[in-house]
Amino acid sequence: MLQAAGRKAHSIGIDLGGTKIEIAVVGDTSAQVEHVHLATGPAGEAERTLQELIDCLKDKFPSTPGSLPVAVGVGVAGQVNPSTGVVQFAPNLRWRNVPLRAPLERALAVPVKIMNDVHAATYGEWLYGAGRGHDDLVCLFVGTGIGGGVVSGGRFLMGHSGSAGELGHMTIDLAGPLCSCGNRGCLEAFTGGWAIANLARLRLRAEPEEGPWIRRLTNGDLGTITAQIVSEAASHGDTLAQSLQTVAGRALGVGLANMINAFNPARIILGGGVMAGMPELLAIAEREAKSRALKAPLREIEIVKAELGPLAGAIGAAARARDLIRGAPNR
Amino acid sequence: MLQAAGRKAHSIGIDLGGTKIEIAVVGDTSAQVEHVHLATGPAGEAERTLQELIDCLKDKFPSTPGSLPVAVGVGVAGQVNPSTGVVQFAPNLRWRNVPLRAPLERALAVPVKIMNDVHAATYGEWLYGAGRGHDDLVCLFVGTGIGGGVVSGGRFLMGHSGSAGELGHMTIDLAGPLCSCGNRGCLEAFTGGWAIANLARLRLRAEPEEGPWIRRLTNGDLGTITAQIVSEAASHGDTLAQSLQTVAGRALGVGLANMINAFNPARIILGGGVMAGMPELLAIAEREAKSRALKAPLREIEIVKAELGPLAGAIGAAARARDLIRGAPNR
Repeated sequence: MLQAAGRKAHSIGIDLGGTKIEIAVVGDTSAQVEHVHLATGPAGEAERTLQELIDCLKDKFPSTPGSLPVAVGVGVAGQVNPSTGVVQFAPNLRWRNVPLRAPLERALAVPVKIMNDVHAATYGEWLYGAGRGHDDLVCLFVGTGIGGGVVSGGRFLMGHSGSAGELGHMTIDLAGPLCSCGNRGCLEAFTGGWAIANLARLRLRAEPEEGPWIRRLTNGDLGTITAQIVSEAASHGDTLAQSLQTVAGRALGVGLANMINAFNPARIILGGGVMAGMPELLAIAEREAKSRALKAPLREIEIVKAELGPLAGAIGAAARARDLIRGAPNR
Repeated sequence: MLQAAGRKAHSIGIDLGGTKIEIAVVGDTSAQVEHVHLATGPAGEAERTLQELIDCLKDKFPSTPGSLPVAVGVGVAGQVNPSTGVVQFAPNLRWRNVPLRAPLERALAVPVKIMNDVHAATYGEWLYGAGRGHDDLVCLFVGTGIGGGVVSGGRFLMGHSGSAGELGHMTIDLAGPLCSCGNRGCLEAFTGGWAIANLARLRLRAEPEEGPWIRRLTNGDLGTITAQIVSEAASHGDTLAQSLQTVAGRALGVGLANMINAFNPARIILGGGVMAGMPELLAIAEREAKSRALKAPLREIEIVKAELGPLAGAIGAAARARDLIRGAPNR
């Protein structure tokens, strides 16, 4: 059983990623955040990771009667079944069909809710981050891959089977670069971290005279290219890096225009490692989106950065589990 | 004041198009449909059209106390402000900033709701057509242009300013054909009626030996090409017509895959004149969508034809006005 000293009604959120686990405690009325960092066990070893997580929770938030969290929420980087609490497929953890809710509820004796990590992060940004007070928003997290979440009319969109908001594999260019999903021209195949790095390597290999700053910043080891390195090189005037940045940003803008037309949000919130490492991306994408989307939904749109950083998922998982347990309306 | 004999609680719906007006009466518990057909007055003459509409309503549904409709709903082919009841821009009617709700309420003495015609049609299909009983659906109407509407989690999505569901101008191909909106490669620029006809004309002019059946069916007047003619020519084995149909259908499938990923609907409902005139489109699009969308949202998807035909808008406008007046939850 869990406790968090001095809190009357709180919930605990866990962001279960491929290499690390973030834990946040969210208070009843505000996001009082404490967090704990934990390495994930070896890939594929679900039982060991789960036991370490339970030990950590019991250690950091020891039980006393009367101060249990109202709920524990877990955001998982992968495909989950929210109604059974089973992780169907989490590629980075190499988990397939791992029951997660049942053992956690047994060990912790509080209600547990399992959800997709990007949905959790969207929920966190909505309630405590850049989405506070808005009823219509799209959150897009641009990291190695791209995932999203949508709030419309004050409701978090789940879709029929809980997977709404898969915006990274939106086709924007029929003849575009090959994506990890097998299609061509997905938004992710232009702007995902892996895609920016891939394209950089291709161009650098094809043009030995180009990209001096990228070569310098990677010490010539093209395997270590990241969006951040491309961004840094671009800021030094590296024209290849600048063109890579423009391609990624404009593709992002095309995707945003599609989302603006489809959802008519008041805000688009952009988070994730690529957005952080390549700060110029937002302005390039915004310019492109505003030149393409329809006038009506553009009238009041704001495109902003996420505010909660890497804790968005844990904070959101805690808040969403709490609200689901309480049957909060519209959520 | 309006009456509809023998009905206890009914509402009236009006679909205000560029050339015709459809009027439907919807009963309290089912879609008992009566409908009236009326030509729209000359383009730009809002007052005259409005007066003819009022006269028609008073004539067809004369007033007696105790049998007033609970509401009148009007779906307009254009951009409306649902909260002010003003038609901001209706290109086919050539209306700009025409107040529609206020004069109708004055003349009819019942509450009036103004909405976008595609939203109205989606609402109609949801409650009385191919969407009955589903909480998560996307309706796409493929006519000269392409418009859409979305229901998610049992709620009709409006977006921040009422324009959610603009799915026709989704970019699917950065280098695709030029669209009426100024961008390249919108879904509409491949599959809208105008686009299919345009592309057919281009190909027929470039290839004088090709398209014998299209030429025959149009008596050589390429200005009269429609999606239906292309479809008919294709069914006679005209290979140019077949390839035009495949291009339009596959583009539609790419758009549907994007929608399946974004909204995770249980059903996609396809309506509109192009879908009716080119029946092969659905199967081609479905095959393409299923080969592209992510596995999770594909698991239970159904792609079906709309059921209400050209009355969907009037039926939906009546039902939505009624539900808005009653403050029905989730709508």
